[in-house]
Amino acid sequence: MTENFAARLLRAQRASGGLVCVGLDPDPSKMPADLAGAPQPLLAFNRRIVDATADLAAAYKPQIAFYSAQGAEAELEASIRYIRERAPQALVILDAKRGDIGNTAVAYAHEAFDRYGADAVTVNPYMGADSVEPFLARPERGAIVLCRTSNPGAGDFQDLRIDGTPLYRVIAARAAGAWNGRRNVMLVVGATYPREMAALRAAHPEIPFLVPGIGAQGGDLAATLAAGLDATGAGLLINSSRAIIYAGGGAATAIRAAAGELRGAIEAVRGARAALQ
Amino acid sequence: MTENFAARLLRAQRASGGLVCVGLDPDPSKMPADLAGAPQPLLAFNRRIVDATADLAAAYKPQIAFYSAQGAEAELEASIRYIRERAPQALVILDAKRGDIGNTAVAYAHEAFDRYGADAVTVNPYMGADSVEPFLARPERGAIVLCRTSNPGAGDFQDLRIDGTPLYRVIAARAAGAWNGRRNVMLVVGATYPREMAALRAAHPEIPFLVPGIGAQGGDLAATLAAGLDATGAGLLINSSRAIIYAGGGAATAIRAAAGELRGAIEAVRGARAALQ
Repeated sequence: MTENFAARLLRAQRASGGLVCVGLDPDPSKMPADLAGAPQPLLAFNRRIVDATADLAAAYKPQIAFYSAQGAEAELEASIRYIRERAPQALVILDAKRGDIGNTAVAYAHEAFDRYGADAVTVNPYMGADSVEPFLARPERGAIVLCRTSNPGAGDFQDLRIDGTPLYRVIAARAAGAWNGRRNVMLVVGATYPREMAALRAAHPEIPFLVPGIGAQGGDLAATLAAGLDATGAGLLINSSRAIIYAGGGAATAIRAAAGELRGAIEAVRGARAALQ
Repeated sequence: MTENFAARLLRAQRASGGLVCVGLDPDPSKMPADLAGAPQPLLAFNRRIVDATADLAAAYKPQIAFYSAQGAEAELEASIRYIRERAPQALVILDAKRGDIGNTAVAYAHEAFDRYGADAVTVNPYMGADSVEPFLARPERGAIVLCRTSNPGAGDFQDLRIDGTPLYRVIAARAAGAWNGRRNVMLVVGATYPREMAALRAAHPEIPFLVPGIGAQGGDLAATLAAGLDATGAGLLINSSRAIIYAGGGAATAIRAAAGELRGAIEAVRGARAALQ
């Protein structure tokens, strides 16, 4: 029987000893100085990041916009192959925020799961059930539904109330309920809004959250863990992109130290919590 | 002074004698038989479509998913260059439904406007103002905001009521208001929901709509025109993809006939309406 995505996530977290997701968002204006003239700079930078963090990461999350803006799809493909070699325990999440009508969503799922071989992809729910369904069709692959995002404008529409319930909670209920029959749904819940995260965790004890917003965006780690950990002390993937990959100007030792520090800080809280229970 | 996108749209419509947008959605399972073995089949098919419709189309709308699923970004780039040569009056709309946090949205805008040179791009508003802003920054380029889409699940969230007002109308008000300071916003409003389109037109007399859903999706043209034309008899771009490009199995004469028939049917209604005024 195929292992569902929820089970794969747990396994990846255990193998890496933590909840860390490393965001591979190589902004061309911030590349490490020594890679400026490299022939495939995004791939070279990603290889460095993966080498430095291979035993620390439960997941890697390349943001496809940084590759497609540069016409660097081949470097993204090669980066994902490199992750498979060097960090076979880690999941690959394609951060693409896709969503479209049925036959187009099928093509996008093909892009994420077949072309790039990703284990999961972020999806935008605004167009409704049939726009998400093609991403849910494979139990071993995850659909990570935008719920309460980390950006300043997140509340513009996500917080609007429908009969007293904010839209993001209506979407969470649909995603964690009707859409999660194959146990392969996660929600995107930003670290910058711990109160909203706590409400979501209370309503949905078992659904895992992908958490952007730690680091450069200003999210607080302690507040995030207090709000989002599930009853087993897991249920989160904590993403950090800029604070890890540009540490020390993008030097390997600094990258490793930043990822290790994040994992350690998370594990200290999880350990203390387990000891209390 | 730079011509804003709204003015460019009007000019493209006048130059083409109509409101037709041709969707370039080359599904590999439906390619014309004679192009099956072509070296760059998507480009070859698009060249045929553009040759057959160059004087009939106000806009072309490639759906990027069909290219990215195949690793065919180079064929999309070449197709857009070909449109510029053969149909210089036509706008190019990249149908990508992008939307992400600030620095990522900047990368997506770079993808659409600089890499592909598109005149406009479809964007998903769920993440709020800052996720859309980078697409609005260039007055001559358009941001086409998903509002009330054409698919079966469109109503799942778009119709939820906030103090009595459906979400899609809340989004329309924001997009047509605060976001449209540069006169470069359009709304996606599906032909399959003419009642909702009529409500939007009443609320927003001047904002242009991009209308998917005619043809294969079952939208009714007469109902769409009655609901969506603005006071000047314009204000719409009517997209048809499958019903045009697969006409007669994808033969050039059938493609031209289908596009011409759509333009003619639209112009008959516009002409009758102008005569009545």
